[in-house]
Amino acid sequence: MTTIRSQARLQQNLAEITRLLERHRVLDTLTHRQEGPRRDLLENLQRRQNLVELQRRLRTMHAADLAYILEALPLDDRRVVWEQVTPELAGPAFVEVSNAVRESLVELTSHDDLVRLLSTLDAGELHYVSTSLPEEVLNELSVAFESNERSAFEDSVGYGEGTVGYHMTRELVAIPDSYTVQQALDDLRARRELPPQTDRVYVIDGRSQLRGAVPLQALLLSDPGAPIAGATDADIINFNPGDKAGDAVKAFERYNLVSAPVVDDRGKLIGRLTVDAAMDFLREQSNLEALKRVGLSGDEDLFAAPWQSARNRWPWLGINLLTAFVASRIIGQFEGTIVRLSALAALMPIVASIGGNTGNQTMALVIRALAVDRLQPGGARRLVRKELAIGLLNGSVWGVIVGVFAMTLYSSASLGVVMSAAVVLNLVVAALAGVAIPLGLHMGGRDPAHGSSVLLTFITDAMGFFLFLGLATAFLL
Amino acid sequence: MTTIRSQARLQQNLAEITRLLERHRVLDTLTHRQEGPRRDLLENLQRRQNLVELQRRLRTMHAADLAYILEALPLDDRRVVWEQVTPELAGPAFVEVSNAVRESLVELTSHDDLVRLLSTLDAGELHYVSTSLPEEVLNELSVAFESNERSAFEDSVGYGEGTVGYHMTRELVAIPDSYTVQQALDDLRARRELPPQTDRVYVIDGRSQLRGAVPLQALLLSDPGAPIAGATDADIINFNPGDKAGDAVKAFERYNLVSAPVVDDRGKLIGRLTVDAAMDFLREQSNLEALKRVGLSGDEDLFAAPWQSARNRWPWLGINLLTAFVASRIIGQFEGTIVRLSALAALMPIVASIGGNTGNQTMALVIRALAVDRLQPGGARRLVRKELAIGLLNGSVWGVIVGVFAMTLYSSASLGVVMSAAVVLNLVVAALAGVAIPLGLHMGGRDPAHGSSVLLTFITDAMGFFLFLGLATAFLL
Repeated sequence: MTTIRSQARLQQNLAEITRLLERHRVLDTLTHRQEGPRRDLLENLQRRQNLVELQRRLRTMHAADLAYILEALPLDDRRVVWEQVTPELAGPAFVEVSNAVRESLVELTSHDDLVRLLSTLDAGELHYVSTSLPEEVLNELSVAFESNERSAFEDSVGYGEGTVGYHMTRELVAIPDSYTVQQALDDLRARRELPPQTDRVYVIDGRSQLRGAVPLQALLLSDPGAPIAGATDADIINFNPGDKAGDAVKAFERYNLVSAPVVDDRGKLIGRLTVDAAMDFLREQSNLEALKRVGLSGDEDLFAAPWQSARNRWPWLGINLLTAFVASRIIGQFEGTIVRLSALAALMPIVASIGGNTGNQTMALVIRALAVDRLQPGGARRLVRKELAIGLLNGSVWGVIVGVFAMTLYSSASLGVVMSAAVVLNLVVAALAGVAIPLGLHMGGRDPAHGSSVLLTFITDAMGFFLFLGLATAFLL
Repeated sequence: MTTIRSQARLQQNLAEITRLLERHRVLDTLTHRQEGPRRDLLENLQRRQNLVELQRRLRTMHAADLAYILEALPLDDRRVVWEQVTPELAGPAFVEVSNAVRESLVELTSHDDLVRLLSTLDAGELHYVSTSLPEEVLNELSVAFESNERSAFEDSVGYGEGTVGYHMTRELVAIPDSYTVQQALDDLRARRELPPQTDRVYVIDGRSQLRGAVPLQALLLSDPGAPIAGATDADIINFNPGDKAGDAVKAFERYNLVSAPVVDDRGKLIGRLTVDAAMDFLREQSNLEALKRVGLSGDEDLFAAPWQSARNRWPWLGINLLTAFVASRIIGQFEGTIVRLSALAALMPIVASIGGNTGNQTMALVIRALAVDRLQPGGARRLVRKELAIGLLNGSVWGVIVGVFAMTLYSSASLGVVMSAAVVLNLVVAALAGVAIPLGLHMGGRDPAHGSSVLLTFITDAMGFFLFLGLATAFLL
């Protein structure tokens, strides 16, 4: 048997493709440099041979591997590869890539080629990629659909991103509850192939109501003559298409599901959520979270044009600038103090920085607790008390260290005491803000991670400057 | 059939348990207040009835739901619930909870109860929880094992956290390659039950070498008389126990696997990785990443003692303090300048802050690209060029805004120009640092997320202060 080390194979494929692309670039330059009658036929031939070699390598590739390679390549190379891909492979790879890269592929593809590529997708896949497609292409496709496909497509468009309906598939195996085990087996054999991630078949009654599920292994192990009801598990976890996908994913994790049925409000079986969709959702969420914290709204193609990327980052920078101005004005109020005691200017960023860091630690823990639903209403009060205690504790320890540093450096005991007091107070502020900001965003129905870090740093900066300079004005002048 | 809305059920269970616990607290206080002969028998009876009710609720619960509830409860309540849990449920719930909560449970359990609980676990589960267990308990268990279980346990201990070996299970179905389909079916039926997440059975030769896998659906759909070889897929993705778990999880995502075989260096089948383990790993990684960025090494029980939590956060705070001191000393070098132009003290945090934020954005994108293996050696050069372009672009736009602000506020055109120049230069520094830090950590074999944010903020703070105050000293005095 072939041993496949998936990661090594990917890297090897990518290296091979990169080598062919480099060769292509060289040959391309050579061929184009010699325009007109002097154009070297031999070099043109080599260039074509190289592209054929590239096609050959791409043809044997798994669609997911091709998607990976498309993601990893800069725009020029991505275009060359994309042009060599066969339509059978282009469809699934188009579904696999990230939104940002998919949009770049749309730009690289002519209208007709795009329509041809999309017509190889089923309604679910098409719906999944629809946000990346131009309006007129979508309309053209909708007309071209057969009526039952169209209704499936239009139904699924109704479920917003982040719902179970958006992520479910309609590919499933359902059998009537009147069957025997043998009849069920015959039914499956007649299909020749089952949909991917089929770990069980669903049992429905005459009105398409879900009655339960039979694991494939139960079908294998049961007496063929027995009624299917005996092998049916009636107590199974199911979802409504309107349920939050995030909650469904947690159920997949908690109960180790491979697939789960989706039923509408009247109990009718309409689809199925599979563990691969759940895992993709989880990965996407975790990627998004890290980007949201720094104010990037989502996916960004690593090789997008600088101008586009620069603008992507503006909204957050604008907010950051506004808060920095406010903090700057607070310092501005104490300019008189700073002129008389210039050490304050050098020391004040320490107070702000240590507050920002402890606040961010508290906040990361709270955000995580909210994400896994571990923070109950009663728990919030306890948590505030606990974080306040930590703030006071850490404030005392680090406040003394900072104070001793300031005292030694500027030979002033009173400056050391003021510095210590400011650190203790700012750590208490940081603890309160670290709990309050994500909880507040969460209770207001917002994502607790989004923007929380700017808000927190604003509070700990502004309060850090205010506390330190205020105390210094009151006690040192 | 019972419709189970998993999330709603969980919340309802938790609310019910919380209600019983509150009742318990009230009754407990009443009972204990009246010590001696005046102790009220009726209240004691009510207290017991309440605990019986709690036991009854817990008994019908899924182990994963119990684990969820244990996580969500503060320490006192957690103890009360834990004492009422039956041994059959305690074992699996003990495996399900997070490390931090598991350690709190170990403290709540007597040595003998702990040994009894652990003896219900299999070697794989025991290995999984072993890091939370006291040494003497581990030794006692190792002796109690039967010899084949012991060797499995001791083998698995050899694989470090983060490897495939650590996360694999030994529960799998393997059949000889000489079987017919019918013989394979008979073999399965004789087992009565297959391990969870069994989507295929493995085919081995006489020397236990892996030959391939037969999907359960192929078993169902094949002619019973045919040799098993005809239904065997020989080209399957497999792992070595020493492979990185993170890479294996990516393969699960890429190829939509439900399970994959693990073979040793000589091709012998020794275990199996399942999608539920892959998903747990993914969730854990994504949780850890968010915590690592703020310098928390890992899991922290939300209800742990403040003293313990405070110390958890020290290493990072220490580093942060050190870098803040260095930045402070840089400002210290310019105290003479600040005394002569106090506006600089108020404006300098803006230069530092805007640099820190843009640098963190760049860094988040680079860390993410590294995490999904999308950054190739050739790509790094392009990325640096692109981020430099963005830095210059954003620097020009925001530098002008900041400059106009400074100019207006302090009625000094030259101050505005110095401020603009400092912002542009610091954004270029931020772009370089945002690419260089995670790439450097990655190439040095370190986790690119860990500690990257302190390093970056240090550079953008220190350089922000230095550039702004240095330019001001040169051109404004």
